[in-house]
Amino acid sequence: MVVKHRGKLPPDFLFRNIVGKLPIEGDEVLLGPSLGEDAAILEVKEPLLAVHSDPVTGGGKLAGWLSVYVASNDIATRGLRPKWLLVVLLLRDGVDESEISELVDQIGEAAREIGAVVIGGHTEITPGLPFNVVVTTAMGAGGMVLNTRDAMEGDSLILTKAAALEGTAILATELRDLLEEKGVDPYILDRASGFIREISVVRDAMLAANLARAMHDPTEGGLIGGVQEMALASGNGFVIYEENIPLREETLAVCEALEIDPLRLISSGSLLISVSEERADELISELKRGGIDASVIGRLTGREEGMRLVRANGIAEDVSEPVMDELWRVLPS
Amino acid sequence: MVVKHRGKLPPDFLFRNIVGKLPIEGDEVLLGPSLGEDAAILEVKEPLLAVHSDPVTGGGKLAGWLSVYVASNDIATRGLRPKWLLVVLLLRDGVDESEISELVDQIGEAAREIGAVVIGGHTEITPGLPFNVVVTTAMGAGGMVLNTRDAMEGDSLILTKAAALEGTAILATELRDLLEEKGVDPYILDRASGFIREISVVRDAMLAANLARAMHDPTEGGLIGGVQEMALASGNGFVIYEENIPLREETLAVCEALEIDPLRLISSGSLLISVSEERADELISELKRGGIDASVIGRLTGREEGMRLVRANGIAEDVSEPVMDELWRVLPS
Repeated sequence: MVVKHRGKLPPDFLFRNIVGKLPIEGDEVLLGPSLGEDAAILEVKEPLLAVHSDPVTGGGKLAGWLSVYVASNDIATRGLRPKWLLVVLLLRDGVDESEISELVDQIGEAAREIGAVVIGGHTEITPGLPFNVVVTTAMGAGGMVLNTRDAMEGDSLILTKAAALEGTAILATELRDLLEEKGVDPYILDRASGFIREISVVRDAMLAANLARAMHDPTEGGLIGGVQEMALASGNGFVIYEENIPLREETLAVCEALEIDPLRLISSGSLLISVSEERADELISELKRGGIDASVIGRLTGREEGMRLVRANGIAEDVSEPVMDELWRVLPS
Repeated sequence: MVVKHRGKLPPDFLFRNIVGKLPIEGDEVLLGPSLGEDAAILEVKEPLLAVHSDPVTGGGKLAGWLSVYVASNDIATRGLRPKWLLVVLLLRDGVDESEISELVDQIGEAAREIGAVVIGGHTEITPGLPFNVVVTTAMGAGGMVLNTRDAMEGDSLILTKAAALEGTAILATELRDLLEEKGVDPYILDRASGFIREISVVRDAMLAANLARAMHDPTEGGLIGGVQEMALASGNGFVIYEENIPLREETLAVCEALEIDPLRLISSGSLLISVSEERADELISELKRGGIDASVIGRLTGREEGMRLVRANGIAEDVSEPVMDELWRVLPS
């Protein structure tokens, strides 16, 4: 049923259909989502606080999962557990009640899974908005943090799971009909859509935090964009090897059908770790003991060596140009 | 010049045109906006942290000002100074460079004015988005906070400045041609647009915090929506008197021309304060000494007395129905 309303939702609808379905109670939360209270109040016990906001605008049917996972990942890469979320739901004009319910269920389930609570936010139906937008702010606290800038020349670069999980899930879900027309097996597409449940790198990051020098999650711009960012932040160059970069069968099928480069496809779900060469094996073992696959995909070099991707044929390619994500090229707007 | 790009902006454009123009350095900020760093890091010295996210979707040309002011206001009503901001800029498809620049200048100027710094965020050009959206998260810290729920039966309700300043500014700016056609004097419209610079209630709240029992800022839903929220949060009813509610000449002109109710029009810029009756005069003097007009507009009652607006003719009207803001009725979508 289409929700006939514009702007901020009425309190009864808001509390019944949104706030009431989310995990909102946590230890350090003195004041969570409450009618008429203008801000959440936390009593933070640890000295350092990490905070980040991320929007999901191209996530379509998966926007709820994505919004929680991508914002939380940015806290986890600091080595901190994401504990608190603020969720701004901008619902499209003509949104359906079942669509709101699906979004909110995804947010609630993702938050519970990573152990975070929703402490605030805002929900409205935005006149003229053609698709749902979710902007999530995630926070965590702790005694120490990792910074991307601390990655060092000579460090091994480790990638967990596989590249392009997020893009694979989004494309398999949003462009399913097109992909089936192009002959991609429906079973492959089912499995590809299911990657959405692997977008969180909280577990990966918590396992890696003690040994890592720096962590970063490649998102928009894909794996190449993510490694670029780590290199730029730390003043280094890099070399990565195509044959060492894990890509799943489902990702290859979706990317081949759409003629896109999986290394330039939005890539939440795999954590990029910089670690001293001598600790790389130990870190990989630690991740594997926790049930997470990981591989060395290359290393950080001096800045003067540039940004290089060695193709499977042994030829090194310059990959220093800013990446526009492949997602934007193929998703209809 | 139209920015031909989709998705996250390239680093050089981002740092030259956005981050470089914003205030980003502050005392407790260990890590602010930096390429490849996934989250901001704060070292918060005070025990309590207030945090709130707010979107600006109907703000048009004033979206930059509004985004900073409305999110910060929600920290100020807790009695805390807003110190840290995260800004998510979702730029419309086909956005112009000058439009980005105007938005960013507004954000920078508003942040400097209230003394806050931008510690993080995200900027992208969102394919298919018909208008710019800004979602701002504001934070502040301190040793104690005020809660809306602590307002008490019998408290006087004080309003600073005048109702509907935000709506007046938005409508005078976005519907200027229509309003001129309807015969509203251009000088009045200039002054009405200028109300945008009065949307912050940080100063009002800092002056009032010591004497107030609770503070709230009426936003969407207007003054009536704001008083309703305070009453619901604290388990009370209320009575307010139309003749005591300050409305400026410019607001009356705009609202009459568009046939809308100024008391149901988005109203950031005036702070609603609940204060014990015996301290009301002292609080008003305190605000006036700080250069801010304030008036008693009514009082909180027992819940059983309902929600009442006494019209200028002395007749009490029930105003307990949830309010849909007048803005959504008259702005084209």
